Amino acid sequence: MREVYFLSDFGLADPYAAVVKAVMRQVAPGLTVHDLAHNLPPGDLRRASYILYESVPYLPRGAVVLAVVDPGVGSSRRAVLVVGERLFYVAPDNGLLTLAYLQDPPRRAYLLEDPAYHLPRKSSTFHGRDVFGPVAAHLASGVEPTRFGPELPVRELLRLPIHLNFGRQGEILTFDRFGNAITTLLATPTQARGKTVRIRYHRIPVATHYAEVPVGAALAYVGSAGLLEVAVHLGNAREQLGLREGDPVELWGGRGG
Amino acid sequence: MREVYFLSDFGLADPYAAVVKAVMRQVAPGLTVHDLAHNLPPGDLRRASYILYESVPYLPRGAVVLAVVDPGVGSSRRAVLVVGERLFYVAPDNGLLTLAYLQDPPRRAYLLEDPAYHLPRKSSTFHGRDVFGPVAAHLASGVEPTRFGPELPVRELLRLPIHLNFGRQGEILTFDRFGNAITTLLATPTQARGKTVRIRYHRIPVATHYAEVPVGAALAYVGSAGLLEVAVHLGNAREQLGLREGDPVELWGGRGG
Amino acid sequence: MREVYFLSDFGLADPYAAVVKAVMRQVAPGLTVHDLAHNLPPGDLRRASYILYESVPYLPRGAVVLAVVDPGVGSSRRAVLVVGERLFYVAPDNGLLTLAYLQDPPRRAYLLEDPAYHLPRKSSTFHGRDVFGPVAAHLASGVEPTRFGPELPVRELLRLPIHLNFGRQGEILTFDRFGNAITTLLATPTQARGKTVRIRYHRIPVATHYAEVPVGAALAYVGSAGLLEVAVHLGNAREQLGLREGDPVELWGGRGG
Repeated sequence: MREVYFLSDFGLADPYAAVVKAVMRQVAPGLTVHDLAHNLPPGDLRRASYILYESVPYLPRGAVVLAVVDPGVGSSRRAVLVVGERLFYVAPDNGLLTLAYLQDPPRRAYLLEDPAYHLPRKSSTFHGRDVFGPVAAHLASGVEPTRFGPELPVRELLRLPIHLNFGRQGEILTFDRFGNAITTLLATPTQARGKTVRIRYHRIPVATHYAEVPVGAALAYVGSAGLLEVAVHLGNAREQLGLREGDPVELWGGRGG
Repeated sequence: MREVYFLSDFGLADPYAAVVKAVMRQVAPGLTVHDLAHNLPPGDLRRASYILYESVPYLPRGAVVLAVVDPGVGSSRRAVLVVGERLFYVAPDNGLLTLAYLQDPPRRAYLLEDPAYHLPRKSSTFHGRDVFGPVAAHLASGVEPTRFGPELPVRELLRLPIHLNFGRQGEILTFDRFGNAITTLLATPTQARGKTVRIRYHRIPVATHYAEVPVGAALAYVGSAGLLEVAVHLGNAREQLGLREGDPVELWGGRGG
Repeated sequence: MREVYFLSDFGLADPYAAVVKAVMRQVAPGLTVHDLAHNLPPGDLRRASYILYESVPYLPRGAVVLAVVDPGVGSSRRAVLVVGERLFYVAPDNGLLTLAYLQDPPRRAYLLEDPAYHLPRKSSTFHGRDVFGPVAAHLASGVEPTRFGPELPVRELLRLPIHLNFGRQGEILTFDRFGNAITTLLATPTQARGKTVRIRYHRIPVATHYAEVPVGAALAYVGSAGLLEVAVHLGNAREQLGLREGDPVELWGGRGG
């Protein structure tokens, strides 16, 4: 039996995440479901994509990622099973897997069209319970990916316009709960050392850890997933620097700058 | 050993939910405890009742529901074990089981009066740890319901004044984290089609899914538990429509309207 | 295999808590990890310390407490393994274990300096994933505490200036999600009965449970961990009484007052 890792925006103040898990265990008794995150802002596909980018490398080979951030539920958006090099993904095809694909390239994809693997009566607003959860559980218990529906060429999978790159110009991808800004700029500590990040009217020095700058001062550093981040030492960069998702970010100066 | 499903308003920023679970595992080593939800607004009995209404049909027969939303802890409110047709419930008798009773009619109830099944020293403010958790664990490990205290006629169980009905007039029961308003009106998609929901000064069309209306527009639909809901497409109905719990709701016009 | 109890300020809207757990399960397949709390305010060491004070007595002997509230990550703050009388602790040495030490005195401590028990490539901002999680997993799977690094005399462990005491004068230690103020004053219900708590310009009667005062009125009581607390009946004391962490608190009058 494969393990399932469950990401959603269902929160923990509603029954939705628990109901999806209860349905999965009915489909596959003994199934192990681990939570990835459930409290992300409703419908935030970029945040979901970042969470997968950061966590996919640490999930065990063969695991099933169930990702349900689905603001288009009930519309014509497609539901897919994606077979990556290391993991399986069950999700709406709305782009939330964009950054997972960078960590684990998609090899095959299938549309979730065979109702034999869904709940018998399908609501129009809760496909986590009625479609994605049951499919993830069947997949975890050994059903072949080809059984869930017709193949979809992986080049047709929807991707968000997020362009991670090792260059000088990027943007703010998303924020985490600490208010740290995660950017689309990839860098190694060696590459970034001595440079400056420009973002809005701020010029922010690259450091290696928070304590290198005074409390309350801004710094940039290569974060735990290799992406350049902007933070305030013991503060909240999003609020204190007035940053917003999509803000242009430039890495400037220094060696190679 | 029965599984326990745990609902509370203890949140995940405090030790309370974890302590209850640790106590239960000491009473019943090997016990499996699943979280239903812990982040609901403090003391919100209507939200708790809705969560149970939505989740009870998906919980496995014989499971124990531990529900601790207990603003009257330490007062004279009763503590009860309710034997339903399918599940068991351990909770304060303050009405939070009201809507669970509709999904799973209560057959017998017992007062939690025998201190042999409580922690030896009982606080006046944390009966989740001292009474409800230990009782749920003993029950899960096989103790007969009759052992926990004297029987209480099920007609004496407290119920909130919530009246789910298939008619035209209801009210807003509660909201979920997306700001969707859950109403007390039961409907099938066929019955509701073509009708209009009146709520405050809004007239809101019934649709089958979010994308049927433009982004930012309001819609009503039959939700995943069969209750009529009001939402804003990619928005927050509670905030954007200025809705409040208890607001009257009317289903109007169309076929049968 | 020992059980791990995991406390952090990583929240449930980010990948961090899930990644730490995934890494631990790779180090120690089959490991059981229970959540203590993850949603505490970022960097709030007093709240973390309170959570441990309240929960440590209920954790099973021999368990490993993994506590990662680490605002100084990447700086020169030390990383430690503490062997208590009953439990093990893996944490930054920044004071967050201060109140755990009162429940479970530290017997030995070790610096986490042997990189053999860390992830091979260590980030400067996520030692939960790279150091603390792997060490906790190795410890849980049977590695001897002496293996992780050189011994640190327990008297050199950092402690926050929090002084729990049975006297008359203390301060507000922290708040819980209900807005209840947890103070540093220890008391038994018998000692506290009939007395008054002075805090800011408020004089608040000691009661035994919420319902003893009218809805909306303030009361003090001996809380579930033996600490005096201040609450508002069906309200939020922090907001409604304008309280702040560190506010002086005096227990006054009555028998022994």
